Amino acid sequence: MGATKLYTPPGYRILDVEGLRGLVSSLSLRSQLGGDPESWDIVEVGDGNLNLVFLVKGPNSGFAAKQALPYVRLVGDSWPLPLSRSHYEHAALSRQAEHAPGLVPAIYHYDETLALIVMELLDAHVIMRHGMIAGIVYPEFADDISTFLAATLFNTSTLAMPAEDFKGLIEEFAGNTALCKITEDLIFTEPYMVAGNNRWTSPWLDGFAEMIREDADLKCAISRLKLKFMGSPEAMIHGDLHTGSVMLTPEDTRFIDPEFAFMGPMGFDIGAIVANLLLNYFSQIGHEETAGARDGYRTWILETVEAVWTLFRCKFLDRWEACESGDGYPAALFGDPFGSAALARERGAFLDRLFQDTLGFAAAKMIRRILGIAHNIDLECIEDAEIRATAEARSLMLARDLMVNTECYRDIQAVSAAARRINGLAPALRRP
Amino acid sequence: MGATKLYTPPGYRILDVEGLRGLVSSLSLRSQLGGDPESWDIVEVGDGNLNLVFLVKGPNSGFAAKQALPYVRLVGDSWPLPLSRSHYEHAALSRQAEHAPGLVPAIYHYDETLALIVMELLDAHVIMRHGMIAGIVYPEFADDISTFLAATLFNTSTLAMPAEDFKGLIEEFAGNTALCKITEDLIFTEPYMVAGNNRWTSPWLDGFAEMIREDADLKCAISRLKLKFMGSPEAMIHGDLHTGSVMLTPEDTRFIDPEFAFMGPMGFDIGAIVANLLLNYFSQIGHEETAGARDGYRTWILETVEAVWTLFRCKFLDRWEACESGDGYPAALFGDPFGSAALARERGAFLDRLFQDTLGFAAAKMIRRILGIAHNIDLECIEDAEIRATAEARSLMLARDLMVNTECYRDIQAVSAAARRINGLAPALRRP
Repeated sequence: MGATKLYTPPGYRILDVEGLRGLVSSLSLRSQLGGDPESWDIVEVGDGNLNLVFLVKGPNSGFAAKQALPYVRLVGDSWPLPLSRSHYEHAALSRQAEHAPGLVPAIYHYDETLALIVMELLDAHVIMRHGMIAGIVYPEFADDISTFLAATLFNTSTLAMPAEDFKGLIEEFAGNTALCKITEDLIFTEPYMVAGNNRWTSPWLDGFAEMIREDADLKCAISRLKLKFMGSPEAMIHGDLHTGSVMLTPEDTRFIDPEFAFMGPMGFDIGAIVANLLLNYFSQIGHEETAGARDGYRTWILETVEAVWTLFRCKFLDRWEACESGDGYPAALFGDPFGSAALARERGAFLDRLFQDTLGFAAAKMIRRILGIAHNIDLECIEDAEIRATAEARSLMLARDLMVNTECYRDIQAVSAAARRINGLAPALRRP
Repeated sequence: MGATKLYTPPGYRILDVEGLRGLVSSLSLRSQLGGDPESWDIVEVGDGNLNLVFLVKGPNSGFAAKQALPYVRLVGDSWPLPLSRSHYEHAALSRQAEHAPGLVPAIYHYDETLALIVMELLDAHVIMRHGMIAGIVYPEFADDISTFLAATLFNTSTLAMPAEDFKGLIEEFAGNTALCKITEDLIFTEPYMVAGNNRWTSPWLDGFAEMIREDADLKCAISRLKLKFMGSPEAMIHGDLHTGSVMLTPEDTRFIDPEFAFMGPMGFDIGAIVANLLLNYFSQIGHEETAGARDGYRTWILETVEAVWTLFRCKFLDRWEACESGDGYPAALFGDPFGSAALARERGAFLDRLFQDTLGFAAAKMIRRILGIAHNIDLECIEDAEIRATAEARSLMLARDLMVNTECYRDIQAVSAAARRINGLAPALRRP
């Protein structure tokens, strides 16, 4: 990881509360907040792995300010990470706002030198991951994320774009290599080998970790997915679309933090959300007061998994059917009745392939959260190690099957059925 | 096509014989040529569609000079084409020379402003297409092109490169969109619809042209290939690797004119050469003095088709087995015996998929040469329209089957067998 140099441009400085207060005082945002700068309530709340996040509140309104640091916050300056990720986040947020209006935070100010994005304060919203740990149902979520996915993925693909603009997008995001490299290493490589970054619930999962390191079919499958991740610019993807990148109320959903955005495989975004729903599903054993108390919530989660894919598929197809601007499958070739029937079948086959990609990437995202460096609070907050390991082992079992036997899963119902079945199994754990 | 503006940078001027003489007189190349500039023999010989090509000979040596024009030479300034293609050609030639030394012309001088590449004079070499029309056997060709393909494709993929360098390559070639657009339009779109650029041997092939325009399965297949062409940066490809881009003697082979180079699907290059060999195979009916006189040459062509793929496959696999530098299928994951056996199977599956891509792209390259704007001299030089149409119709029959029923072709022998079979059929032509 140390290959990237710790570089900051002239004028960059790490902001603290007073630094941000001074900066905002000189911007037009000042009047938006109202009152005297000294009266503003500013706190740094970044609980993510990479950046500083400030919440700023004045008498009239508030906003959030996100500043990139020249290193990984979680690790410190021994792990440099380019500030340019803020540039890519800003570029992605702008395009997402264009294609999926109302589903990302509004941007109020962007300072490229400071790697600072000032955006809408989502005060009433909670991080979805936390809400799901608390067992909160989000009735609008499947509809909102399927809209977000269909809109952002379809509209940034050659199905909607002329080739020249599409290639401009590839060029625009090609430089976000350092962030892609994190994904390539931490998701697609390290969990499958002995690596210093890896950790898991030991000794309970030692057998599972070893089994996965020795599973040649799985290692071929993850490498095939890695190749696809590195060389499939199908659309501008969010790149880190887990339930920690979703902020919502029961009525409103926003997708945040697209700093990993680049032109990549569509299935990576869809798979990320499916994976995180499934991880939370298996984690419920650690969150319920009494056995079975969360069964209703479990049902909602799996219904949501099904709805995410099913709605996404419909919305993506609807957009495709209505669109004639893309250089892919040019409309001029499919005007006659035979052509349009064949194209309809072809669209179905495209979505079937995308479904397979989705499952593979979902599996990759599940495994890395259990054996790799970065874990999910859904599972981490379960204090009883045996219960946590049980949930984790079940997640690994489903993920392994999804990744190696992908073709056996013909529809999303097969996935939820497998999750339900595996949730009833007692995994063979290694006792201390 | 008219979207691109006719742009030339300050300092660019179209060279003529005297302009080139003056320019070279001021370069260190002068001493390489020897003698007095006035004594140099300079002729413009460009017979391609796009550029000026000068041959310059002095008492001591000679060279070729290729200058890009700001428009398509074949059409004139109504069809602008950016000079930057010279930049990409130079970049590609440099990398090809690095990976496949001795198989591309040496570069002596490059002038970015003039879009001028001065390179080795291949005085003893002929364009392969012309040699094949004359029935000349090139015993080294299959070995040379398979080396060129394996070396350039493998070494510019993530199988050999770290992801960051690989993405640098994607960025480096992302701007060559105008040349890609030519391919996207003329190969993957127009031959399958009514388009002003299209022409064919009429009325003989009218029925075939119509059949192809109404063939919904074929139009889905070509669109799937187009999508792959636009969004699969697997490796730096030559982008126009037909037998007119090959100059050779029976002992020496060089691959020229990579101005269409970009990060694309490997199968497009391999398919291009397979297609052009097959087109020449079918064209032999128009070149033989008496029926069957070229049977021996036909056999050599099909043996060469088989050898190109078979040798390529072996050489690509050899390189992969020996390489540990790529971020794809990282060596660290496959060190144990089970891992290495699984990886061996996986490599085979990778090559099997590449074979399918190769056949699809080969078919695309065959169809465009018969129904699209740019035809092959192999077929064009056949004066008898019925004989030419017979050869062309057979080419279309094979190409249609290769593109739609790709999966039925399990190995390259199945392709040559189909070519032999179809070469014995009498196509239903429309008589005048």
